[in-house]
Amino acid sequence: MTLSVDGARLRADLEELGRIGRVPEGGISRTSFSDADRAARAWYLSRCAEAGLSAVIDGIGNIIVSSPAVPKDVAARPAVWSGSHIDTVPNGGQFDGALGSLAALECLRRIHESGTVLDRPVRAVVYTDEEGNYAHLLGSSALVRGFSRAELEAMTGRDGDRFADAFIAAGGDLDAAATVRVDPSTIHATVELHIEQGPVLEQRGHDIGLVTGIVGLGGGTLTFRGRADHAGTTPMNLRKDALRAAAELLASLPEIAASISDRAVITSGIVHVQPGSANVVPGIVTCSIDYRDLDPQNLDALGAAITAAAHNVAAASGVEVEVDFEPSIPPAPLDAGIRAIIAESAASRDFVASDLPSGAGHDSQNLATIAPTAMIFVPSIDGRSHCPEEDTAWRDVENGANVLLDTLIALATN
Amino acid sequence: MTLSVDGARLRADLEELGRIGRVPEGGISRTSFSDADRAARAWYLSRCAEAGLSAVIDGIGNIIVSSPAVPKDVAARPAVWSGSHIDTVPNGGQFDGALGSLAALECLRRIHESGTVLDRPVRAVVYTDEEGNYAHLLGSSALVRGFSRAELEAMTGRDGDRFADAFIAAGGDLDAAATVRVDPSTIHATVELHIEQGPVLEQRGHDIGLVTGIVGLGGGTLTFRGRADHAGTTPMNLRKDALRAAAELLASLPEIAASISDRAVITSGIVHVQPGSANVVPGIVTCSIDYRDLDPQNLDALGAAITAAAHNVAAASGVEVEVDFEPSIPPAPLDAGIRAIIAESAASRDFVASDLPSGAGHDSQNLATIAPTAMIFVPSIDGRSHCPEEDTAWRDVENGANVLLDTLIALATN
Repeated sequence: MTLSVDGARLRADLEELGRIGRVPEGGISRTSFSDADRAARAWYLSRCAEAGLSAVIDGIGNIIVSSPAVPKDVAARPAVWSGSHIDTVPNGGQFDGALGSLAALECLRRIHESGTVLDRPVRAVVYTDEEGNYAHLLGSSALVRGFSRAELEAMTGRDGDRFADAFIAAGGDLDAAATVRVDPSTIHATVELHIEQGPVLEQRGHDIGLVTGIVGLGGGTLTFRGRADHAGTTPMNLRKDALRAAAELLASLPEIAASISDRAVITSGIVHVQPGSANVVPGIVTCSIDYRDLDPQNLDALGAAITAAAHNVAAASGVEVEVDFEPSIPPAPLDAGIRAIIAESAASRDFVASDLPSGAGHDSQNLATIAPTAMIFVPSIDGRSHCPEEDTAWRDVENGANVLLDTLIALATN
Repeated sequence: MTLSVDGARLRADLEELGRIGRVPEGGISRTSFSDADRAARAWYLSRCAEAGLSAVIDGIGNIIVSSPAVPKDVAARPAVWSGSHIDTVPNGGQFDGALGSLAALECLRRIHESGTVLDRPVRAVVYTDEEGNYAHLLGSSALVRGFSRAELEAMTGRDGDRFADAFIAAGGDLDAAATVRVDPSTIHATVELHIEQGPVLEQRGHDIGLVTGIVGLGGGTLTFRGRADHAGTTPMNLRKDALRAAAELLASLPEIAASISDRAVITSGIVHVQPGSANVVPGIVTCSIDYRDLDPQNLDALGAAITAAAHNVAAASGVEVEVDFEPSIPPAPLDAGIRAIIAESAASRDFVASDLPSGAGHDSQNLATIAPTAMIFVPSIDGRSHCPEEDTAWRDVENGANVLLDTLIALATN
């Protein structure tokens, strides 16, 4: 008979964790190394202990949980890892990271308590500071490439606080943190369950997302420089209006994205207008650009197309434009073999599954550089995430956890 | 023989006034009732006294200068007024207001010292706070419609300071200020010389601008409300991007202006994007709208066209829009009879003159409500104004002052 998770227990865990760091704005603030984050980690460790599981905390705070019942020869083999994070963005939601962390714990707990004997060890993992308060995907980045002590000392948080201060206050040791690495030969495969954080599965009416990869990310800023002029005395045809050029570029972004691929996204989330007076034609406009695609060639093409369009609209408006894009983060393709196992599990449980990329970053993109890695998505209600409205149906939570359990067992079986 | 101004003396006056309130940024800061403004007023009064002219200061600080040599029966007749202002915007230019104020003084001085006998008195005027630190066209507004004591007490400046405090510190009396009005029957006509503050005359290569009227002004804010979403996980076609809608509207403003009239201008100088994060699709975008035209019907049409376009782009992007436009300031047509006199003067002096509207507000729009009023423009180099680069060729300064002199003499002659 197929092993399944205890959906009620997983729900209770998610609800209990969801009360830690709840803020008056309605969401959850468990930024890494905050009191709430430390309370959540303590609670997680207590749940592991209650289940008879043993946890190890590495030098940067990643928690790696195992079943002590696994025979020694099995425990020495490359392990199947599954996990996510329990830190959140400020006023974030209940499922981002928490679902993958607690579902992995539930899977390991189910395997452990059912006495299921596998050929490889399964480990539940909680990665430190996935939300990048101090560094992008801090815990998993430390595992796959490490940070020097100097890098750790230079890190500052969203509020300008030093990582070193928060880390030492939480009992951390910078020298130990600088030595953290994982030996890739100790990992057989990794799988992360996560909420989609977007509306695609809901729109499709599908239960399970087979994540093809994590999109690459490019962008930076565009600065249009025209000339500030009197709004009343300068005829339209004699203006060098930086905002007119910026607006034309911004309005064309959907068309540019569509011209590259049907999955490409381009976003401008920040616009600054100078001098910023209602009766002065804008002289300088700066806007942020964020573009993403799963295909590295498309990513390059997006950057080139936005740059060309910016120069075209600038020339047409008689203004200058400066394109300041940072080196892009390459796409992380995920393992097709594990994706097939996930698809098989979904089919066997009568869930409708389909491929989609992850538009957001995840620790899995780091793990994918050292081991076969996959991700499973479940639908986000109304596509919301990083906000109090973030939600996923309990049925989808249980479905996703069961697919994860099947996949972990398959991967841990010769 | 035709009377002419003393161009060298006018230039020396402008240069001397231009040193009062000069700031390290390169421009002039003589905001109303500042120490620099008070020093400039004292200097102006001393120049009047040196010329043997007599000045009266009304309850709000407007300075009205007359020649004591005018026979009593002439002095009692409706007068020809000419003047402008000597306050500036922060870090403003040397000619805005100063030219019209000192050219009027030079004309009156020339008439006075040459013993020219006219049929009506000519008065040189300096209006208080034209730049609206405390209220839009404060001094001339007091003359034509007055302010209550309560209105005066409620006024605050750009820096949040109270008008009453600055006014009393400068020796003012609020009760006296509240009684200021001018009896329209005492004014025969008014003429103001001003720099164009725009690039039109320079572009045309013309010497003198025959100002057809002062444009009306409408506008306020547009607020687009979509939905903040994750920039990575929300496909382009499922976004409700408030910035996309705003950008489409902003990019269409030149086309909207051109569809109403070739003189209409529309400006957005302020844009606020929320939540204002590079990786979040904008949920709310607010932008300022300023539109101007000389024709009241065009002004209404501009407001209607912008409103319709905003609703159209919002509907197409699946977002909401709120149009919050204030009641518009109507256009002020200027007197065609005086404009013909100005044109005749320009022609007789071999200056090339042409019609244009004033896109900026001036005290003349207030005076035009109680007396036949005209304005004369001279070219602004590169169209710059309200900045340290504001400049006008000395030849144009003298040309404009001579046309003003001819016009004042013609208006003061039966």
